[in-house]
Amino acid sequence: MRAVDAIRKKRDGGELTTAEIAHFVRGATTGECWTDYQLSAMLMAVAWRGMSPEETATLTGLMANSGSRLDLSDIPGPKVDKHSTGGVGDKTSLILGPLAAACGVVVPMMSGRGLGHTGGTLDKLEAIPGFKVNLDEAALRTALREVGLAMIGQTAAIAPADKKLYSLRDVTATVESVPLITGSILSKKLAEGISGLVMDVKCGRGAFMKTREDALALAESLHEVGTANGLRISTFITAMDAPLGRAVGNALEVIEAIETLKGRGPADLTDLSVLLASRMVKLAGLVHTDEEAEAKVRAALDSGAGLEVFRKCIEQQAGDPRVIDDYARFPVSQQVSDVVASTDGFIGWLDAEKIGMAAMKLGAGRNRAEDRVDHAVGITLLVKPGDFVNPGDLLFTLHYRDEATRAEATALLGEAVVFYDAPPRPQSLVLEELE
Amino acid sequence: MRAVDAIRKKRDGGELTTAEIAHFVRGATTGECWTDYQLSAMLMAVAWRGMSPEETATLTGLMANSGSRLDLSDIPGPKVDKHSTGGVGDKTSLILGPLAAACGVVVPMMSGRGLGHTGGTLDKLEAIPGFKVNLDEAALRTALREVGLAMIGQTAAIAPADKKLYSLRDVTATVESVPLITGSILSKKLAEGISGLVMDVKCGRGAFMKTREDALALAESLHEVGTANGLRISTFITAMDAPLGRAVGNALEVIEAIETLKGRGPADLTDLSVLLASRMVKLAGLVHTDEEAEAKVRAALDSGAGLEVFRKCIEQQAGDPRVIDDYARFPVSQQVSDVVASTDGFIGWLDAEKIGMAAMKLGAGRNRAEDRVDHAVGITLLVKPGDFVNPGDLLFTLHYRDEATRAEATALLGEAVVFYDAPPRPQSLVLEELE
Repeated sequence: MRAVDAIRKKRDGGELTTAEIAHFVRGATTGECWTDYQLSAMLMAVAWRGMSPEETATLTGLMANSGSRLDLSDIPGPKVDKHSTGGVGDKTSLILGPLAAACGVVVPMMSGRGLGHTGGTLDKLEAIPGFKVNLDEAALRTALREVGLAMIGQTAAIAPADKKLYSLRDVTATVESVPLITGSILSKKLAEGISGLVMDVKCGRGAFMKTREDALALAESLHEVGTANGLRISTFITAMDAPLGRAVGNALEVIEAIETLKGRGPADLTDLSVLLASRMVKLAGLVHTDEEAEAKVRAALDSGAGLEVFRKCIEQQAGDPRVIDDYARFPVSQQVSDVVASTDGFIGWLDAEKIGMAAMKLGAGRNRAEDRVDHAVGITLLVKPGDFVNPGDLLFTLHYRDEATRAEATALLGEAVVFYDAPPRPQSLVLEELE
Repeated sequence: MRAVDAIRKKRDGGELTTAEIAHFVRGATTGECWTDYQLSAMLMAVAWRGMSPEETATLTGLMANSGSRLDLSDIPGPKVDKHSTGGVGDKTSLILGPLAAACGVVVPMMSGRGLGHTGGTLDKLEAIPGFKVNLDEAALRTALREVGLAMIGQTAAIAPADKKLYSLRDVTATVESVPLITGSILSKKLAEGISGLVMDVKCGRGAFMKTREDALALAESLHEVGTANGLRISTFITAMDAPLGRAVGNALEVIEAIETLKGRGPADLTDLSVLLASRMVKLAGLVHTDEEAEAKVRAALDSGAGLEVFRKCIEQQAGDPRVIDDYARFPVSQQVSDVVASTDGFIGWLDAEKIGMAAMKLGAGRNRAEDRVDHAVGITLLVKPGDFVNPGDLLFTLHYRDEATRAEATALLGEAVVFYDAPPRPQSLVLEELE
């Protein structure tokens, strides 16, 4: 078998056989028979011609098997994780992980870092003084047994084919391809040793998928391919037009997550976290109906059991658990600046992408994968769509590091608010759920 | 400017600017800013989205300028070349080059080697004992002044961007792309320092372009882009369903070319060679009409002036000119085997691709670019489409080296002949000429 023949087949719109996909994945993993320029030609051919659900399922399974696949069967309890395609202000993982674990789900959550205007769970967790996201497999197992939850980065042994392909896609403009995104996300999740997964596909201005059509195509692919690979999967499409909650920036978002676990979070963030956690509980087989699941999660929220899991998780991963009761221990910049309304009107919409970009300008995010993030900076939203404001009313508070980035961020935030004469039609956060 | 942004633009169907194409061509030439895997991703994106005539013209011009461009203005006379996209039994270059030169055209003909079932002019020339195809620029200039014709390989300094891109295209299944083929062919021709070019786009079973539609698309691109880059160009689409002439194989083809220059060649080969040579004479501005041009070329053929140019050319390039009068000096294998008809009927068609493959099996061609060719082997066609044969009549004579390759070639030749009950409709060799 030759790489060039498989590339030609895909270029001409053909369907690759399992043997051809295996040859490609082995090439990505070991360099055997496939050069980097042949891998990238195949990636562009796939971006062009797509892949059938069967091809994508095969690709995903083989990528999952390209490295070591965790076997968590000796740890009691059902293993379920959640994954989001990335949004602005989306700190649901920090809330639903503890809530699901408090309900008896074992959550081996492997997350990534932020890039561009979207944040990453690992960056947020590292805002907690001392918190270690790089656990080895033994430490991960201990955490899952002791706490029921571990929130960590991918180990090097997980899905090496994806690491190689992702690094090529990033520099060859082949990121935006439904089968390649599907393979990348699900190969890593399959390698985690979970039996269930809740997928949150973000849709809107602040998301990777801007249109409902694109989001649905990805959601369906994830749902079908996850199922074909033996996962129980629940897939949501949720709106990412405005940021989720009121905090954007690493330490600020962890504080908001803790507030939410204390029962004082914003409604949108609380409701979405509870919904996603309750699907995890249901996929875990701990209840029979959606209603039972949601009641169980609400109880874990109201009793403070979720908060206690988060406290233990922080402790287990070498973080300072005192942050839960003392937010002053977070590195939050005390240089603060306000953005106020210059007109009156209803907040029509808040552009999540612009707000995410503003937070990135402040230092909260990365332009390139090798950039460092500043955990102390960020933006607090004082308004939400539908609010009425008068001139001079507060819109945003910025926690910043220096004047130049503050000015840049302020300019972006000025473009992020659109005023309406009448209240905008309320929009549901959950756009669709795939069965 | 970043490579990934240009790739993304083309991936999304955008039109690249001159600056972006220049960045890409410089990357291909020097490795600056473009890795091999980014070059190949762009090549696949171009195969997908195509290029506008303007983009293709810009690409071609910049590729031509990526190395040294010959300046032949100090050599008196109009410089015109001919290029074919490759066929089976196509030895027209060996005939029309001498004929055009005999008419006063200066022909700096740079050719390539054969690959797959199609032959290459350089391989044929090297069947002449002693013939050197690698002349340096000084020797090329001397040959053009003394003989008016040089038949050589590309020098290393010609179009290095094409060398790089072609080597990537070959292993990434991006050969079949009209703008990339156009850029590859014309960049080298532009760098030769010619003012006119006759293009022969082959079409049919034995050609790279199998359908009239594909051949027309390539012909139009070559015609338009050549013109945009200042070439006077005449573009033909000619049939390549059956081999041209009766000889397939290096030494056999040179002998047939010499026979043709002696006025004893097959009609199809003679007529096409005269036609293409006469367009060279016309593009050179030596006559005003097609009729005058053809009369001039026929005169050079009938007088033996063309043959004398070929003799001088062989001598100038260190070959043994005595081959012209003594074919026994050619390395032709004396191991001969016949293929005879097992049925009676009219020869419906002869599959040029299968016959080319059979010649390759005998050793006349290359499977891979690094293979060596055997100049002594080949196939003589004893029949042409329309001939009536009885069982036992000769179809082919094979000149072979060993029994195994003879058997393989014979099996292929058995599949290459299709018998009809009635004579096939005669087909014109020239399918189209672009003005």
